[in-house]
Amino acid sequence: MHSVCEAVSELLKESRLLVQMEEISLQTSLDRVLAEDVISTIDVPPADNSAMDGYAFTHADWPGPENPLTISNRIPAGISPVELLAGTAVRIFTGAEVPEGADTVVMQEHCEEKSSAVLIQKCPSKGANIRRRAQDVAAGQTVLEPGARIRPQDAGLIASLGVARVKTYSRLKVAVISNGNELVEPGLPVQPGQIYNSNRYLMSGLMKAWGFDVLDLGIAPDDPATIRSMLEEAAQQADVIVSSGGVSVGEEDHIKDVVGALGVIALWKVSIKPGKPFAFGNVRGTPFLGLPGNPSSVLVTCLVIARPFLFACQGIRDIEVLPLRKAALFSRKESFRTEYLRVKSVANGLECYPQQSSGGLLSTVWGDGLAVQHEGQEIRLGEDIDYLPYSFLF
Amino acid sequence: MHSVCEAVSELLKESRLLVQMEEISLQTSLDRVLAEDVISTIDVPPADNSAMDGYAFTHADWPGPENPLTISNRIPAGISPVELLAGTAVRIFTGAEVPEGADTVVMQEHCEEKSSAVLIQKCPSKGANIRRRAQDVAAGQTVLEPGARIRPQDAGLIASLGVARVKTYSRLKVAVISNGNELVEPGLPVQPGQIYNSNRYLMSGLMKAWGFDVLDLGIAPDDPATIRSMLEEAAQQADVIVSSGGVSVGEEDHIKDVVGALGVIALWKVSIKPGKPFAFGNVRGTPFLGLPGNPSSVLVTCLVIARPFLFACQGIRDIEVLPLRKAALFSRKESFRTEYLRVKSVANGLECYPQQSSGGLLSTVWGDGLAVQHEGQEIRLGEDIDYLPYSFLF
Repeated sequence: MHSVCEAVSELLKESRLLVQMEEISLQTSLDRVLAEDVISTIDVPPADNSAMDGYAFTHADWPGPENPLTISNRIPAGISPVELLAGTAVRIFTGAEVPEGADTVVMQEHCEEKSSAVLIQKCPSKGANIRRRAQDVAAGQTVLEPGARIRPQDAGLIASLGVARVKTYSRLKVAVISNGNELVEPGLPVQPGQIYNSNRYLMSGLMKAWGFDVLDLGIAPDDPATIRSMLEEAAQQADVIVSSGGVSVGEEDHIKDVVGALGVIALWKVSIKPGKPFAFGNVRGTPFLGLPGNPSSVLVTCLVIARPFLFACQGIRDIEVLPLRKAALFSRKESFRTEYLRVKSVANGLECYPQQSSGGLLSTVWGDGLAVQHEGQEIRLGEDIDYLPYSFLF
Repeated sequence: MHSVCEAVSELLKESRLLVQMEEISLQTSLDRVLAEDVISTIDVPPADNSAMDGYAFTHADWPGPENPLTISNRIPAGISPVELLAGTAVRIFTGAEVPEGADTVVMQEHCEEKSSAVLIQKCPSKGANIRRRAQDVAAGQTVLEPGARIRPQDAGLIASLGVARVKTYSRLKVAVISNGNELVEPGLPVQPGQIYNSNRYLMSGLMKAWGFDVLDLGIAPDDPATIRSMLEEAAQQADVIVSSGGVSVGEEDHIKDVVGALGVIALWKVSIKPGKPFAFGNVRGTPFLGLPGNPSSVLVTCLVIARPFLFACQGIRDIEVLPLRKAALFSRKESFRTEYLRVKSVANGLECYPQQSSGGLLSTVWGDGLAVQHEGQEIRLGEDIDYLPYSFLF
């Protein structure tokens, strides 16, 4: 049995970039992964400009609070101003270029304007209220690197450089298979012995939340021949295969054996709770992640073991998630596997869902993250433990 | 001038549900907001079932580790089993229904099977390895409430109840306007005095990240008549209007005045840094959020002031975000407004971007969240301060 840490690094060793580079418009780039450096070709701002609505002047020319300066020009944003007439001031607005010769801007609240002249009642220090050329970004500067996922502020920054198209990675295509004779799709009648298929929605949802393309192959029955043809189709059409169920010890569990016959099972069983039977390998060279059948095990192994691997295959740079530390409002005796407890964060710490069975999803819906109980760790009431909010993970 | 807290609660008071109810398929429901209770009509699991691959039997019938029990049946998952023959065991698989009469499942690793009989070498306690009917969800139980945003695990849970369609709120339609004569779209040539429009991408990106529909109206010049017709169009077509720029004090700032003429400016100027000139009101009854023109101010006022209001209009229940506490790896003298510092979380605390000017976006791209410096607060090196990771906010 592999530790969680071993499993994650074993999978990362097997990961490789499985996506292509594609140029897309900045407008559709949100959440996509950058495939190239973004290097500015311009200075931002392109010239010294005013940070205020006010008056631009030469600091050495200030005649004191009682004496006015003639207003020689008016500079709204968007135009290129002529040089400042010596010994005068110009009316200027936020974002407008400061004319050559002016070295200071005074905010209008500190001035009084009277018939084409301005009284600067409170003179700021020399250079005040001017945003310097290239203060934010200098031409030639690298502002974003490959592997960055484009957030709203990243798109804004790229736009500010005048760049309208970006090179990104295509979306990783993940085939999703839910295995089990007992599974029925929601909306259909259920017979005795059957249950509704939740894993399909759980797995597809996670893959979509991570920005992947989902090839949803539906339910695979417990039949080796059908499983074989579904896995072959998945291997042909997708970059990675993710399945739930069929990886445990019983002779009704066929997924693992069929993968072994078509390719290889490189890793099986992880010291994780829930999720022990997790399997990893490939089907004719296409990476295969075999999640257990219980929904909570699917969620936990997806977030903890599959996520770093899939992110690496998608070319995402920041894979590691630093857990927070929060006080446990519960206690638990020593664990022999690494347990991922479904918890909820409240003002003074973490509450633990009472039923931590791997079967149901209510524990994961009730809560907002996973607390980590490491192998051999006992949790004492009030002590700080590792906590991974779901919002850090998807 | 309003405090941040006053501004947020003032806006929330003016908020109302601006969306309609619409039934959609569960498969397309990710990130949508539930408009109704989800109440289970079934028990989950629907019957007692096995948590293991193993053997089901009656605990009182265990003949000891040396004596076999005859195997009278084989129950894979997905079928409805007949009653257990007294004094026998049945082969059973994970997820399969436990037959009437059996009260315990032993995992196969603790057994030896020999010619149609099984030696149970290690007998578990009575009732072991059985997932009880309704253990996860009981018929009649409310599992999700209106206002919940559907995460992957929520979709999984809804599927497990057999529900294929859900009532959600339509997406809030937000009109986005970037105001300023100096603005040019990326990809086009820029003239002296002009800059590229980053706010459009920043605002649209945030609205999309929040799950809203964006009506992107592009750039509004500094011209009252054009602004007026754009605002009127926005008010007719969208649920909410968000603009950047044109809300400061100078006479080139027209947005606020035009909104005041078409409707009302209910609130102006917030004691926030960056972002002071933030304005709120309505255009012919359609709520209007006037963000300042500087990109960092746009980000901060969007996340801090606009987000709670927009979430309320979308019907989202969990609006409040609890800040984390982390050590400041920097110091700052007392602030007279509430400052939102662009910071990066590292192992031992928060690093502060050296240039906190409101102009550029590099500070927000470099970092992973906002540290809050409250009004009147001095930040001393090493002391814990409030920290809002971006992943908590979008």
